[in-house]
Amino acid sequence: MTTTHKTAILGASGYTGAELVRLIHTHPAFEISAMTADRKAGQAMGAVFPHLAHLELPVLSRMEEVDWTGIDLAFCAMPHATAQQAVIKVPERVRIVDLSADFRLRDIDAYAKWYGHEHLAPELQKIAVYGAPEFYREEMRTARLIAGTGCFAISALLPLVPLLEAGVIDPDHIIIDSKTGITGAGRAPSERKLFSEVTEGVDAYNIAKHRHTAEFDQELSKAAGRAVVASFTPHLLPMNRGILATIYVHGEADAAHEALARRYADEPFVDVLPLGAPAPETRHVRGSNLARIGVTADRQKGRTIIVSALDNLVKGASGQAIQCANIALGLPETMGLEAAPLFP
Amino acid sequence: MTTTHKTAILGASGYTGAELVRLIHTHPAFEISAMTADRKAGQAMGAVFPHLAHLELPVLSRMEEVDWTGIDLAFCAMPHATAQQAVIKVPERVRIVDLSADFRLRDIDAYAKWYGHEHLAPELQKIAVYGAPEFYREEMRTARLIAGTGCFAISALLPLVPLLEAGVIDPDHIIIDSKTGITGAGRAPSERKLFSEVTEGVDAYNIAKHRHTAEFDQELSKAAGRAVVASFTPHLLPMNRGILATIYVHGEADAAHEALARRYADEPFVDVLPLGAPAPETRHVRGSNLARIGVTADRQKGRTIIVSALDNLVKGASGQAIQCANIALGLPETMGLEAAPLFP
Amino acid sequence: MTTTHKTAILGASGYTGAELVRLIHTHPAFEISAMTADRKAGQAMGAVFPHLAHLELPVLSRMEEVDWTGIDLAFCAMPHATAQQAVIKVPERVRIVDLSADFRLRDIDAYAKWYGHEHLAPELQKIAVYGAPEFYREEMRTARLIAGTGCFAISALLPLVPLLEAGVIDPDHIIIDSKTGITGAGRAPSERKLFSEVTEGVDAYNIAKHRHTAEFDQELSKAAGRAVVASFTPHLLPMNRGILATIYVHGEADAAHEALARRYADEPFVDVLPLGAPAPETRHVRGSNLARIGVTADRQKGRTIIVSALDNLVKGASGQAIQCANIALGLPETMGLEAAPLFP
Amino acid sequence: MTTTHKTAILGASGYTGAELVRLIHTHPAFEISAMTADRKAGQAMGAVFPHLAHLELPVLSRMEEVDWTGIDLAFCAMPHATAQQAVIKVPERVRIVDLSADFRLRDIDAYAKWYGHEHLAPELQKIAVYGAPEFYREEMRTARLIAGTGCFAISALLPLVPLLEAGVIDPDHIIIDSKTGITGAGRAPSERKLFSEVTEGVDAYNIAKHRHTAEFDQELSKAAGRAVVASFTPHLLPMNRGILATIYVHGEADAAHEALARRYADEPFVDVLPLGAPAPETRHVRGSNLARIGVTADRQKGRTIIVSALDNLVKGASGQAIQCANIALGLPETMGLEAAPLFP
Repeated sequence: MTTTHKTAILGASGYTGAELVRLIHTHPAFEISAMTADRKAGQAMGAVFPHLAHLELPVLSRMEEVDWTGIDLAFCAMPHATAQQAVIKVPERVRIVDLSADFRLRDIDAYAKWYGHEHLAPELQKIAVYGAPEFYREEMRTARLIAGTGCFAISALLPLVPLLEAGVIDPDHIIIDSKTGITGAGRAPSERKLFSEVTEGVDAYNIAKHRHTAEFDQELSKAAGRAVVASFTPHLLPMNRGILATIYVHGEADAAHEALARRYADEPFVDVLPLGAPAPETRHVRGSNLARIGVTADRQKGRTIIVSALDNLVKGASGQAIQCANIALGLPETMGLEAAPLFP
Repeated sequence: MTTTHKTAILGASGYTGAELVRLIHTHPAFEISAMTADRKAGQAMGAVFPHLAHLELPVLSRMEEVDWTGIDLAFCAMPHATAQQAVIKVPERVRIVDLSADFRLRDIDAYAKWYGHEHLAPELQKIAVYGAPEFYREEMRTARLIAGTGCFAISALLPLVPLLEAGVIDPDHIIIDSKTGITGAGRAPSERKLFSEVTEGVDAYNIAKHRHTAEFDQELSKAAGRAVVASFTPHLLPMNRGILATIYVHGEADAAHEALARRYADEPFVDVLPLGAPAPETRHVRGSNLARIGVTADRQKGRTIIVSALDNLVKGASGQAIQCANIALGLPETMGLEAAPLFP
Repeated sequence: MTTTHKTAILGASGYTGAELVRLIHTHPAFEISAMTADRKAGQAMGAVFPHLAHLELPVLSRMEEVDWTGIDLAFCAMPHATAQQAVIKVPERVRIVDLSADFRLRDIDAYAKWYGHEHLAPELQKIAVYGAPEFYREEMRTARLIAGTGCFAISALLPLVPLLEAGVIDPDHIIIDSKTGITGAGRAPSERKLFSEVTEGVDAYNIAKHRHTAEFDQELSKAAGRAVVASFTPHLLPMNRGILATIYVHGEADAAHEALARRYADEPFVDVLPLGAPAPETRHVRGSNLARIGVTADRQKGRTIIVSALDNLVKGASGQAIQCANIALGLPETMGLEAAPLFP
Repeated sequence: MTTTHKTAILGASGYTGAELVRLIHTHPAFEISAMTADRKAGQAMGAVFPHLAHLELPVLSRMEEVDWTGIDLAFCAMPHATAQQAVIKVPERVRIVDLSADFRLRDIDAYAKWYGHEHLAPELQKIAVYGAPEFYREEMRTARLIAGTGCFAISALLPLVPLLEAGVIDPDHIIIDSKTGITGAGRAPSERKLFSEVTEGVDAYNIAKHRHTAEFDQELSKAAGRAVVASFTPHLLPMNRGILATIYVHGEADAAHEALARRYADEPFVDVLPLGAPAPETRHVRGSNLARIGVTADRQKGRTIIVSALDNLVKGASGQAIQCANIALGLPETMGLEAAPLFP
């Protein structure tokens, strides 16, 4: 019989918070005991997210009002900078998966540079494990604090880390052209995110300066054993969910494919397609925790094109956070994450 | 412990077939033992629907190749006219839920009139139970053949049948203005369904002659105890899933609301919103088996506007079919249908 | 040779303002001499609307900074309530087409009731002509102030006014079910208008209490020669442009069709389709000043379903405003409005 | 006074054909005298494209039925392979702009390799001028046959050709990551192009083997004066119109920007944004003949990211074809192409 873990969701009024609720609703071992949202405190979750209105859920409260008795797991789905202020207040015995950028960067100075302010919880930063189960599974088993990855980051790290570790690609020629749906930008209103400004078009933004770049630097350099500076261009597409990363590398396609196929043979949520097969599509992983990777030889000898697809709210955020929590709590890693993608 | 029901899906290569697979994948008591698709026989389901490629599923076969040993449940997700030819060949001990229009109309002549050809299985027609659990639950418990409702039909019958039965609306003034996503039209290619012909626009089609009208005539007349002819106009919207029915009736809003709230108080999948609350939205029930109903008083005294929202592929088709099967097999009615909606 | 009319656009930073610029850019007799936008004063229009960045346009200024010398035409594209404060300051010799709701209602009390505050320019209100060229063309020729219609209003008034005037429909049974794209809600950011909250879904809003209802009351009652209270339900669809009004009336379809075909035979921008033809689609009038109307007999004897389609930013706002200005200035009515729809 | 050129549109039943009609409708010097569409011969254009139903247009005819008297201009908007069979039958005095791939490749063998069959009109192939006005303007003035460019091709050639000619980028490191709307795939029905298969997702297709690659090889090699093999990956996005090319090159950003700014200073339809400005968006050029180019320095020294945006049906096809025809006939190059983009 499964023990039930009482769970708190800090910052439940954003899309990743709502996605945690959706996924935990059918998770056999998690039960939501507290949900916070400072500006919406006192409201029912169903008033904030009508798609959850028919579920039995705690009323949204302020962080200070949470009764932590019996709670041994917390997800923090707050924006960066505010997340660190919340995490620091969680009782020490509670395992935490934070979905913000606050604890991803091991280098405090890199954090300050990319996020524009000093880190407020440098001690916690030191103990945080980067939330990519495929790379840090062992560290997670005993971790108190797991720092969920950036959605752009994980979609490109999944293919690139094994290739750099295997030495089958050139660390000096990595180009990551990413395409994302709009939910990655959150729910706070802005002109830029209006339907009429997003639909029927595409644009590149934050070229060469997107903050997830810092995660690429950290993890790719670690994998390569030397400094790696990848090119990264995010694009905004007229869709809700999904990240597609098209990655251009110098290296042989068959060696790259073999390295990935071998590395991910037993991973439950990473699906490496046959070499040269049609590339994966974001719409085919929507709503699921699945990441798919395709490898194709370029026309130019010695160059390879890799395509990676995942749902930014699931494998790129809330689903992966649950995967991390499963590991940390000694549960089967796929628990609560078996649902098939929703298509169309 | 739950017994596992071996299940066949006849006509698995369309959207409702794929949706059955998605839902059954996490259903604790159903196991897919056979899947047919005449024109795709021999192919893996993942070749037809890449979003299901990572699941273990039987290869698609021809109907004739199905080994029925041990199978006690079949879903038929074929187009009308071909469905009746398939259903007639299923072994008699197998319970069947048919999702086509073939067995919905009790009147063989009405079928011939609306569908343009004689019925090929009139004997089966006679024993079919109309697949609206909220209205025919008892008949379903012993039914061999259940005829899944039309998606437009169920979305408007859910609010209208109780109102006619309670006598709180005028049967001579019922207008159903329905808005549907494109998946209701299936996956067969046509110019009309191309992205470029559907997106960024809306149109009304088959005004006053859509085939689901026959279901309205049958079920509304039964509920009213006299002939009812409702006005029905379907509209095609640029979205995948969802039906919204805006229904204009003569009758008092509070009486209507009370009749619906009372009728559906214990129904697991029908959610009547408070009188005058913001109307339900299709995006808030996407992917779930939930139907939501809102009631608002019109400006004109004695008139009421009712809005009903559901996902045409779930409560309007495959989810409701599983609900029917659960009832027919004596399982908990909500089994396998508890997942929360996917939003955004 | 055409005289050039120097033109001011007041409130140019919204969608209808930008649409005026787009249309005037190829209008042979209008030239934009001033553009105001209080909060964006000092910016180039191209910074606010990059799609216009390559055009030569005046810098956005504050209303007070406009040099009115030589200007004889002004469009006011401000929100309601602020529009009346601007219009009152325009030099008397300038012809004005106001696109807000401020001058549409002849009854000052009706304005106060629906808009929640006293009217600030009741004297101007009295001289305003309702901006439906098809109904008030003669009044417009000498008008100083024209009050552009509501987009929902004109889309349903075009079919309904001639039918009420001809006496071929029952004034007590009019139901207007309208579907609109999101641009009608403007560009001010709000959660409700985010891409992720609009796409892949549909909802009804402001049921029985939308402000455009006041225009229906005024114009339908005038046409019928008695008080008319129509039912009106607006729906928000995942598209940028377009309003489709599905209208249910009591009356014979052939008489209705004949009345409309006769009434609009010579109108350049109203296209009545053959009786029973496929209903008009919003995507087929996108970007143009065209309104299309289709008439179909309902299944119920003596009832008729009418569908009307237009682009809310063109015939529903800026295009019609230019049509009005053409009339007021004695220009050919179609000048600058001949472009074909943009499809797909 | 402008002479009117009687014009034939061969293959008018596809999207580029319809777009030609839309644009020519307001072109002061062109008049449509014949329109062909073999399978739709005898139909009104408005039956095939309802958005054009209110225009006065010739009935669709078979190619054989065209009366060429007085016609001195023809656009051919047929699919590749059939286009060459039509073009060969056009009277010799008629100037032709062909929008298919049939006459783009100077090398007959390259054509056979990429398109899978021998060319049927090799003599015409030899006299065809590649339809990029920015590069072949002089040759066009006397050309009888102009071969409109591929939409992917022109969007990347506009930035790349001047950079290679100026020698400011390395010909061995060119990566073109293109994103296109669905209209580029035409109107022929296929499962792949259904709304439900396109919306809410993105995918890469024909990686390293898209046919437009042949145009890149030809024109980039010519510009560089040596063989150039660029990497090219097209992606399909859920939108109607637009191509965004994100191009990764080795070379300094300021030198690249300067080369482009200088080259296009006087071009009416190429708009080079300031160095480092927000990248151009496809939605801001929709419906217009404008191409926009943005240049940004990458994080890696000596590398540059270029973004190019255009409307595939206008600057990528029908608009550019009219631009070519204007040049060939000695008309002002911008005639009929001045309309501002349609946004939103």
